[in-house]
Amino acid sequence: MQIIITAVGPDHVGLADPIIHYLTGRGANIAEIQMYDHDEEALFAMLLRIELAGAPLAEVRSALEAIGQQKGLSVRVWAPDERAARPRLAICTTFRAEPPLAVLRAIRDGQIKAEAAVIIGNRLACRGIAEQFGVAWEMIGDADGAADDERMVALLDQHEVDYVVLARYMRVLPPSTCWKYAGGRIINLHHGLLPSFPGMRPYHEAYAARMLTYGATCHFIVPELDAGNQIIHQATFTTTPGTRLDDIIRLGQEDNEPRCLVEGVRRVVSGEVRLHFHRVVAR
Amino acid sequence: MQIIITAVGPDHVGLADPIIHYLTGRGANIAEIQMYDHDEEALFAMLLRIELAGAPLAEVRSALEAIGQQKGLSVRVWAPDERAARPRLAICTTFRAEPPLAVLRAIRDGQIKAEAAVIIGNRLACRGIAEQFGVAWEMIGDADGAADDERMVALLDQHEVDYVVLARYMRVLPPSTCWKYAGGRIINLHHGLLPSFPGMRPYHEAYAARMLTYGATCHFIVPELDAGNQIIHQATFTTTPGTRLDDIIRLGQEDNEPRCLVEGVRRVVSGEVRLHFHRVVAR
Amino acid sequence: MQIIITAVGPDHVGLADPIIHYLTGRGANIAEIQMYDHDEEALFAMLLRIELAGAPLAEVRSALEAIGQQKGLSVRVWAPDERAARPRLAICTTFRAEPPLAVLRAIRDGQIKAEAAVIIGNRLACRGIAEQFGVAWEMIGDADGAADDERMVALLDQHEVDYVVLARYMRVLPPSTCWKYAGGRIINLHHGLLPSFPGMRPYHEAYAARMLTYGATCHFIVPELDAGNQIIHQATFTTTPGTRLDDIIRLGQEDNEPRCLVEGVRRVVSGEVRLHFHRVVAR
Amino acid sequence: MQIIITAVGPDHVGLADPIIHYLTGRGANIAEIQMYDHDEEALFAMLLRIELAGAPLAEVRSALEAIGQQKGLSVRVWAPDERAARPRLAICTTFRAEPPLAVLRAIRDGQIKAEAAVIIGNRLACRGIAEQFGVAWEMIGDADGAADDERMVALLDQHEVDYVVLARYMRVLPPSTCWKYAGGRIINLHHGLLPSFPGMRPYHEAYAARMLTYGATCHFIVPELDAGNQIIHQATFTTTPGTRLDDIIRLGQEDNEPRCLVEGVRRVVSGEVRLHFHRVVAR
Repeated sequence: MQIIITAVGPDHVGLADPIIHYLTGRGANIAEIQMYDHDEEALFAMLLRIELAGAPLAEVRSALEAIGQQKGLSVRVWAPDERAARPRLAICTTFRAEPPLAVLRAIRDGQIKAEAAVIIGNRLACRGIAEQFGVAWEMIGDADGAADDERMVALLDQHEVDYVVLARYMRVLPPSTCWKYAGGRIINLHHGLLPSFPGMRPYHEAYAARMLTYGATCHFIVPELDAGNQIIHQATFTTTPGTRLDDIIRLGQEDNEPRCLVEGVRRVVSGEVRLHFHRVVAR
Repeated sequence: MQIIITAVGPDHVGLADPIIHYLTGRGANIAEIQMYDHDEEALFAMLLRIELAGAPLAEVRSALEAIGQQKGLSVRVWAPDERAARPRLAICTTFRAEPPLAVLRAIRDGQIKAEAAVIIGNRLACRGIAEQFGVAWEMIGDADGAADDERMVALLDQHEVDYVVLARYMRVLPPSTCWKYAGGRIINLHHGLLPSFPGMRPYHEAYAARMLTYGATCHFIVPELDAGNQIIHQATFTTTPGTRLDDIIRLGQEDNEPRCLVEGVRRVVSGEVRLHFHRVVAR
Repeated sequence: MQIIITAVGPDHVGLADPIIHYLTGRGANIAEIQMYDHDEEALFAMLLRIELAGAPLAEVRSALEAIGQQKGLSVRVWAPDERAARPRLAICTTFRAEPPLAVLRAIRDGQIKAEAAVIIGNRLACRGIAEQFGVAWEMIGDADGAADDERMVALLDQHEVDYVVLARYMRVLPPSTCWKYAGGRIINLHHGLLPSFPGMRPYHEAYAARMLTYGATCHFIVPELDAGNQIIHQATFTTTPGTRLDDIIRLGQEDNEPRCLVEGVRRVVSGEVRLHFHRVVAR
Repeated sequence: MQIIITAVGPDHVGLADPIIHYLTGRGANIAEIQMYDHDEEALFAMLLRIELAGAPLAEVRSALEAIGQQKGLSVRVWAPDERAARPRLAICTTFRAEPPLAVLRAIRDGQIKAEAAVIIGNRLACRGIAEQFGVAWEMIGDADGAADDERMVALLDQHEVDYVVLARYMRVLPPSTCWKYAGGRIINLHHGLLPSFPGMRPYHEAYAARMLTYGATCHFIVPELDAGNQIIHQATFTTTPGTRLDDIIRLGQEDNEPRCLVEGVRRVVSGEVRLHFHRVVAR
């Protein structure tokens, strides 16, 4: 059984040893191991991908969580196969309703075989959608939309979320969140073609570059500052010369972006693709 | 009547005066005027777009060509409307047959309303296509594929070409050729999405960037080193993670590129778009 | 005598004809001619560089200004040699005092042989410097620092300014201002190495790229959106790994930037370099 | 004592376990651990940085090398402090003599406190320099300059090299070599400013961008395709507008590049900087 373990702590020296010691003692084979540190803060992380036969997942999880508590590490143990038939999604939203709506409809219609565990917002805009689809709603934003990142992680843990879907969620996740849910669990929708248009205004930038092609990108977020974008799916549309920018943006937001996100989430949830050493590979 | 005049000469001082003097004397209104120089060589150029009523085109042309001969300038006078119903195309080729084939079929089927005046190659690969479609064939390459650029211009002049279609023609046109046929007369097919992938190996570069979107760009060539690409049309296709590069290239070359070029040439020939102050605008 | 003429108007059809007609009638030789248009607005411009012998500058200027008034064009006639011995500078400022101070000291000490005609600010920060050096001070900013761009041009005209020095002036000049003072008259100080770091936070971007080299760039502003940066001078300094960003910024702002601007302005004012067909060339 | 262990093998599953098992059994504390894989080939690598007290280095080395032989892994054990007073350098060369000459002179003059263990070339051009300084010379190139990369690694091992200095060595090291000598042991001289000008012709590219600043970069090579450049030192020089490209290249090659490399090697050898989680930090 494949298990992905993440650990986050304040120190790079004591981070790896107790976890690795426990796992190798239980006969685990290490398939991938990475350590990260964060430039500016005293924040270190480890990702372990192991193969483990013969030990119950629940036992490994509680043992590692106990090590975490004892050593002051934030530890998570995740097995992709545990709920592979119907993984649990958190859908994170800000203002735009089309991407979360499209995902919820695709779940309802059986196109995405998953459970919408919770809808999280740093704005209230998508609350009605949660009610409409009967999904738990959690507001993590303050009056200015600043997000309580710690509460988001607590909600992901509490709702036993397999995958985090950033459905035009307009806040940058802090490195610690990315590390805690590392290993191909955070799926982002970017409203431009990556890596060419990475900024906050990709429609404007592609328009200024006089492009006639506009696109959206669904990708895993990988917890490294320098990392490329791990692309799961891209969807594009083409305009004719003279098309106005606001028409282009409307086409992109109302049609192309939601379509892109649904197909990307479907690929991950169905197991067609996964993250392997920082790359998206077909299974 | 709109007339586009280009002049190329060795000196920037004597380039503009005699031509402008003649034209303003004939009552022309100047709509656009540009002068260029080439960094490394003593080579200067002027583009004039004028509105002229009451003077016959043939007379203006012969008068300006006489000025050119007298002053040592290479002068061309072109009126887009002269053969607007059925403009004459030169199709320039190297190895790949799909793009020129697609253009010739689109002409045959009435999708592109134009005349294939001549097919030019710096390699012999597309000679059979010229024969098949009964179009004049001209070989301008030597044994290594190096092109005789002066002969290309002579052929364009001799065949009274309105638009030059670079159908995966793999040589860079020298600035002097671009200037002589400036004003929106040279249509290029680039086998990558511009401006993101401008190089000689755009499929490889997009693949190395882990993109899932691949595209082709049909654009005017503008005779300035720093100029952006004046995009007429872009066509894209999307792959799934794990698709092999050679499969992607095959898809692009056999389907996407020819389709892109045909639509681009159609837009220009039908008068849907034109070049206006370095930009492609809808008419 | 070399004369640079700029004309700005709402229409591209009537822009060039009356000016060119007058000049060729006076026996001018056209050395360079460019027309620009602005993407979003109905705003067109022409730059003419001519050689004119035998006609007094004052007469040409008043004739062309009369044409401008009659035709609704904003026309300017400038001869670089008119005040070549001691050209008149406008020094534009926002918050930072070091760059304008360095230019004023270099003028006082004879390193820059020019006249400080006026100091313009969109903030009050540099008013004291103007008083200290006895130079006219003009405030063009509102309470938020938004600049009255039309008043800036009126001040440049009124003070008969040869060169506009943007000494960490933090507002973007509108295209119309750039066109009115085109031809190598606007000198900007950018606080990063161009073209690599063009944005608003070049120190932060170079630091994020883990560079150890930081620089400033003194360049002409050319009135085209796509144009490259016409570099007059660059000054750099190097740090060791581990140097803090705020120490780097301090070094750059207090020492490297002012030094860069002074040498750049000196090169232009002394006639060592000039703009020629969008390029900086040594005279 | 800090020890850096690298292991390279054909499989990611059996790579980490035996080494980690041995080390944790000996009481090592893991300070950093990374696993890499190579896109196109079945080639995996691990980097371990550990703190080990109480176990003799020689014993650890022979134990791990024995594990490597048994498991089919290529294992290296390196302690930076072992020869910290006078580390052993391999200087790799192609055509240009200035950079290796400058390093050898700096060693002779005591500026760089190191031992030139061996000079390696894929061309014969620097053989005379090796003879002049009495350093072992090894030729690894064939008639076309193609390098025998396996022989290079064998030579580095045989000469017990601490740091590999690429002194304008014009071949790309294969990932397996970078992984085997990972951890801050490979120092490269790039003849352009990184990350702005990464290509093979950085002088030409900076010149084409109309820059007046040219530079060289001394950096660690890190065995990841996506990794940024780990910059140890950068040296620059500035030219005036109109300086010819070949004069710029000559200035760079004869003065700036050698100076840059000497200071960079000095910083590493003296222990002023080191690689820490993919970043260069001051000690």
